[in-house]
Amino acid sequence: MKTKPVGPIPNGYETRDGELAIGTRTASDLVASAGQTPLFVYSRAHLDRRVAELRAALPSRIGVNYAVKANPHAAMVAHMDPLVDGFDIASSGELAMTNAAGIDPKRVSFAGPGKRDDELEAAIACGVTLNCESEGEAQRSLAIGHRIGKAPRIAIRVNPDFELKGSGMKMGGGAKPFGVDAERVPALARSIINEGADWRGLHIFTGSQALSADAIIEAQGNVLKLAAKLGDDIGRVLPKLNMGGGFGIAYFPNDTALDLSAVGAALHGYVEDLPPSLKDTELCLELGRYLVGEAGVYLCRVIDRKVSHGTTYLVTDGGLHHQLAASGNFGTVVRRNYPVAIASRYDAEPDDVVNVVGCLCTPLDRLADQALMPRAQVGDIVAVFCAGAYGASASPAAFLGHGPAAEILV
Amino acid sequence: MKTKPVGPIPNGYETRDGELAIGTRTASDLVASAGQTPLFVYSRAHLDRRVAELRAALPSRIGVNYAVKANPHAAMVAHMDPLVDGFDIASSGELAMTNAAGIDPKRVSFAGPGKRDDELEAAIACGVTLNCESEGEAQRSLAIGHRIGKAPRIAIRVNPDFELKGSGMKMGGGAKPFGVDAERVPALARSIINEGADWRGLHIFTGSQALSADAIIEAQGNVLKLAAKLGDDIGRVLPKLNMGGGFGIAYFPNDTALDLSAVGAALHGYVEDLPPSLKDTELCLELGRYLVGEAGVYLCRVIDRKVSHGTTYLVTDGGLHHQLAASGNFGTVVRRNYPVAIASRYDAEPDDVVNVVGCLCTPLDRLADQALMPRAQVGDIVAVFCAGAYGASASPAAFLGHGPAAEILV
Repeated sequence: MKTKPVGPIPNGYETRDGELAIGTRTASDLVASAGQTPLFVYSRAHLDRRVAELRAALPSRIGVNYAVKANPHAAMVAHMDPLVDGFDIASSGELAMTNAAGIDPKRVSFAGPGKRDDELEAAIACGVTLNCESEGEAQRSLAIGHRIGKAPRIAIRVNPDFELKGSGMKMGGGAKPFGVDAERVPALARSIINEGADWRGLHIFTGSQALSADAIIEAQGNVLKLAAKLGDDIGRVLPKLNMGGGFGIAYFPNDTALDLSAVGAALHGYVEDLPPSLKDTELCLELGRYLVGEAGVYLCRVIDRKVSHGTTYLVTDGGLHHQLAASGNFGTVVRRNYPVAIASRYDAEPDDVVNVVGCLCTPLDRLADQALMPRAQVGDIVAVFCAGAYGASASPAAFLGHGPAAEILV
Repeated sequence: MKTKPVGPIPNGYETRDGELAIGTRTASDLVASAGQTPLFVYSRAHLDRRVAELRAALPSRIGVNYAVKANPHAAMVAHMDPLVDGFDIASSGELAMTNAAGIDPKRVSFAGPGKRDDELEAAIACGVTLNCESEGEAQRSLAIGHRIGKAPRIAIRVNPDFELKGSGMKMGGGAKPFGVDAERVPALARSIINEGADWRGLHIFTGSQALSADAIIEAQGNVLKLAAKLGDDIGRVLPKLNMGGGFGIAYFPNDTALDLSAVGAALHGYVEDLPPSLKDTELCLELGRYLVGEAGVYLCRVIDRKVSHGTTYLVTDGGLHHQLAASGNFGTVVRRNYPVAIASRYDAEPDDVVNVVGCLCTPLDRLADQALMPRAQVGDIVAVFCAGAYGASASPAAFLGHGPAAEILV
């Protein structure tokens, strides 16, 4: 059978006793500790290293926020607390998570185009910054603040007139449901300030999952220019600017890792030459996938090895109910293989071409197509890498009644 | 703005007091009862009517099974109990649901390519029929049966050499992870019978979501021929044949409803002329989506009405975390609009072109693109039809922390 390549395995995963090791522990040891497959393993060492790399590359002038949506696992959120400057949330459900982790609401900002009144009230009451998405939401926020006797902390989310080129999800450059069109921002900001809001500045998010440093550098330059112009038009110093993120990770064959040093160097240049109106503005990046994506591995077990018309299938107890994106069914048009390996035979010679599938009764449930692997048997453990972001929480866990995977941070 | 059509609204939804009525109750009344949006409403009257239509069209010789995966809501499963002849499950989680509903395990069969040993044991212990997917699974089942002192009830799932043409999901016609290739079935069946299993016959599933009566008629003809041939080769009467399903429903513009009467007439012809080896075989169809899909409506509320670069967005509190397939992100390549309407202005003149989006912070979260609708405001209720199957349970409910929708059966 013809082979198809799998994606690149992220740095930092080694072999121990012939098995994949995550941190210092083997896959089978981790599965034994958790008491089950399927299992998401998140590595503290990877998380710490990634943040350290970022801090080394970025100017200290630019803070780093964690976008909780990428992975809201409680231990993950708690681990990120001392590592990052702030948290971005997308719902009152995520607010409950940051509150449960003891994170100061003053470090939290809340974006999302469909915030309900009860969500606005919960956020205003505890002092979370609202990244306001529309004139209507601003009015609702001010009315709620008035009613509960608390000035809402409001930033405006801007729908910029440019996009992050090559990004997996474009969040700017045309009509969008997110934020306020740039030309309407100054009037809205003045009105919010006049009505007594605690003015927190701007949020400009141009796209996500970009691997081109040039595209990110260009977009961040445009973000700073737009923010300076809007700040001037508003006529008040911007207390804060969330510059968005967009830093991608390599999932697929031929993906090349983002050149972080190039992005860092460009950002150093930008902050040394900030326009006057941003001199006193607090700057931050909002990163989710880039912080946690490569720190996670999804482990599942081979339940059956079978042959149909000459094609070998490894049927696992995992699947798209935990790994929707890896199956190719979430925001992708052409399915390609994520990085996938036989964790329990990690250093064995690859000599077998197999389709790795999940346990669901649907042809959509594919984890690797025509992959060259060491020969695996029933009981072997399969690893899907790049599983730290948009895995467990972004998949239909109830589908077909198999239930959620376990998650551990090691 | 140019308009895009929405899918056809299923029969049986009327206007009452200007609103969409489901059964006898208006959308706003249902939302008030449930105490929230987003809300899935499932209609008993629709379920009953659909089963009655099926029974009228099909020969009484052919039973109807409900595939729980389509909608495992507890009240739904309980309502289907007296309406159908059997239940098909896909996991021990779904077995727990049929057991909780008091459904006799003898009426239940269990298909799925990755059944774990504990799942096989639970099924064997209570007398559920295993639709066996491989030689390896057969051996595991027999060993478990031996260990617990109970002969497993085993049917063999066949990977047929033909497909259901035009089906949304092809489950036959080439290499597949499902079932046993047809030519290996007789040997496996004889071995299972020799080793003392309670032999239950065959399961042949060729595809799903087909709207062409001709394609279904052809596939069912091929299923009966294949089953007869395999039965002869096995040399034992087939106690039962699950003929699969594949009956589709109309989701999209230009979809035409399946001609059930044509399918029924052809099946009458088939059963009047059954090959001798199937004369005493119990026959059944396995249907999920066709039974329950049109009986469900997803209701969500407009949280914001906003304009960006001339495009109007209705931002709702619903989204792809409950309606992944309607957003165009599950098994579809080109996104098309499901049937969507303003439930709270159901008989108003459509004079507004809008994009209806969910509350999630991703451009994937779309419920209707460029749809011509009555002019809706904040607080209005949006209805997405064809929400009875593969909605609540097949969507990433935890994504972004908004939590699951409510579900009611009325």
